[in-house]
Amino acid sequence: MQWYFIAALLTILTSSQGILTTLSQTNGRYKYDYATIPFLAEVFKLLASSFFLWREMQFQSPPRMTTEWKAVRLYVVPSIIYLVHNNVQFATLTYVDPSTYQIMGNLKIVTTGILFRVFLKRKLSNLHWLAIILLAVGTTTSQVKGCGEASCQSLFSAPIQGYLLGILSACLSALAGVYTEYLMKRNNDSLYWQNVQLYTFGAIFNMARLLWDDFRWGYESGPWWRRLLDGYTFTTWMVVLNLGSTGLLVSWLMKFADNIVKVYSTSMAMLLTMVLSVYLFNFQPTVQLFLGIIICMISLHMYFAPVHMLVDLPATSKSASSTLKEVIIANQE
Amino acid sequence: MQWYFIAALLTILTSSQGILTTLSQTNGRYKYDYATIPFLAEVFKLLASSFFLWREMQFQSPPRMTTEWKAVRLYVVPSIIYLVHNNVQFATLTYVDPSTYQIMGNLKIVTTGILFRVFLKRKLSNLHWLAIILLAVGTTTSQVKGCGEASCQSLFSAPIQGYLLGILSACLSALAGVYTEYLMKRNNDSLYWQNVQLYTFGAIFNMARLLWDDFRWGYESGPWWRRLLDGYTFTTWMVVLNLGSTGLLVSWLMKFADNIVKVYSTSMAMLLTMVLSVYLFNFQPTVQLFLGIIICMISLHMYFAPVHMLVDLPATSKSASSTLKEVIIANQE
Repeated sequence: MQWYFIAALLTILTSSQGILTTLSQTNGRYKYDYATIPFLAEVFKLLASSFFLWREMQFQSPPRMTTEWKAVRLYVVPSIIYLVHNNVQFATLTYVDPSTYQIMGNLKIVTTGILFRVFLKRKLSNLHWLAIILLAVGTTTSQVKGCGEASCQSLFSAPIQGYLLGILSACLSALAGVYTEYLMKRNNDSLYWQNVQLYTFGAIFNMARLLWDDFRWGYESGPWWRRLLDGYTFTTWMVVLNLGSTGLLVSWLMKFADNIVKVYSTSMAMLLTMVLSVYLFNFQPTVQLFLGIIICMISLHMYFAPVHMLVDLPATSKSASSTLKEVIIANQE
Repeated sequence: MQWYFIAALLTILTSSQGILTTLSQTNGRYKYDYATIPFLAEVFKLLASSFFLWREMQFQSPPRMTTEWKAVRLYVVPSIIYLVHNNVQFATLTYVDPSTYQIMGNLKIVTTGILFRVFLKRKLSNLHWLAIILLAVGTTTSQVKGCGEASCQSLFSAPIQGYLLGILSACLSALAGVYTEYLMKRNNDSLYWQNVQLYTFGAIFNMARLLWDDFRWGYESGPWWRRLLDGYTFTTWMVVLNLGSTGLLVSWLMKFADNIVKVYSTSMAMLLTMVLSVYLFNFQPTVQLFLGIIICMISLHMYFAPVHMLVDLPATSKSASSTLKEVIIANQE
């Protein structure tokens, strides 16, 4: 399977996620407990991966599986990072308004590039760096609302803690991605076995979160398992399946492609969602969206197009081979 | 003289032009006839070039000068193009509002690239094209005002004639630049002799424009030569000298560099003016300005940085030379 096919699929599904979530609301609000969605998505991913692993065990030579606790315990780390990230996110939002938070979120594109280079030791050319910065600038451009009014004022006037937490949030988000890539690539274990470990911890942490919510709200609406599927409609189930599927695609990309591919997929998905919203929800299209799309397309091309498509390479190979011929002739004489 | 030094100087002077013009106003309006400025600037450029030409004739072997009418008459073309362009500009503004006109003006960056390729047969790599589009996107981004209000509405809802005239305007502006480059480079004539021809026609056409204005307004405020220096202050003279100097620098770039360098200079000048306005005139800085600057800087780097700085070139030259050695050794055995 080619990575760009999976990346395109991830873009479409991530984009549908926003649309489906909006469609799952009744009269502008959720009739179900939204916190149950990620839990069920983890369970779905765990079941799907277990099934695929079982099938792998049936048909071919047994899949590679490292089962020592020393290796398995590494899979708890992403869940811990996400837990910390969620809390940092929550803290950030007490200092900045949601639209400033959204703008700062684009920083994770750049932090992913940095951690990708630092921790995974992957070399990036200057052109790659320019493309990554441009992707962040492009997504930001598309999100900028009118300026000169309150929305702009608020972007520049949040307390310093807000910006620092925003940067921390971007770093944690990048760290989760880069660490997962490290996990998936550190050995040749079956992808499904790796997934099973990852999602088992994921399901446990999400369940703990539901328990904690119950405790915090004083069991107002009963324990979580009693209201798990309350208010679920067909669309709600689609949201769960969709979120689960994007998770499986991300795992695949982490093993067989990399974090930068994932970042491009999800950024393009954000733009696609905005374009679809213009048609589906009668959003007013902005010049900024149009400019942002061009910028991101240029960035995509800069990052992924083969070098010889972008620049006219100095004809060293050609001239070298003709020199070669001359030398050979000179030697033969 | 290095072209990037002249280009940087052009950026600074072009940027000062906007600032000086604003400073030359008294209580927000001009106390002098603004149409006299370009005329005096042409006269200044003509005098300066004549002086330099005269000096060239004194000191060294006589400068190259083609004086047949067949060659001289080519220098009237830029003046004609500018005349048409001014009228198209005027017509465009009857269909679109000034801010839409400003946004559409960025199109001339792209049309300059196209005419540069088509008429001057200059090859541009894909990366160069991406950089040129990005420059236009970057300057546009910096100019976009709040959206969702009237300003955005107006950008998308001008009559079709407005857009067509805007495109025509961008083409004419590019044509004037590309044609001037062709003129300056078509032979080895002295730059100053070429300038003298160019600015003689320029001065004549600007004078004709003043005459025409007088006629159109029914000599309300007297003939142009009677009110030529009316209301001129020190700052007004600075505006004239500054405009004249930028013209001389552009001529130099057209002969010894090219149109793309000029386009980068003036685009950067636009951004510099906006940044200076934040300090000088208490303009409210916008996120869009910040994003636009990053985009244009990336574009600049993409266009002008040497290829080996941007990408890790496949080590063809190295591998080829080692192959060469092996072949030679093989031949010698």
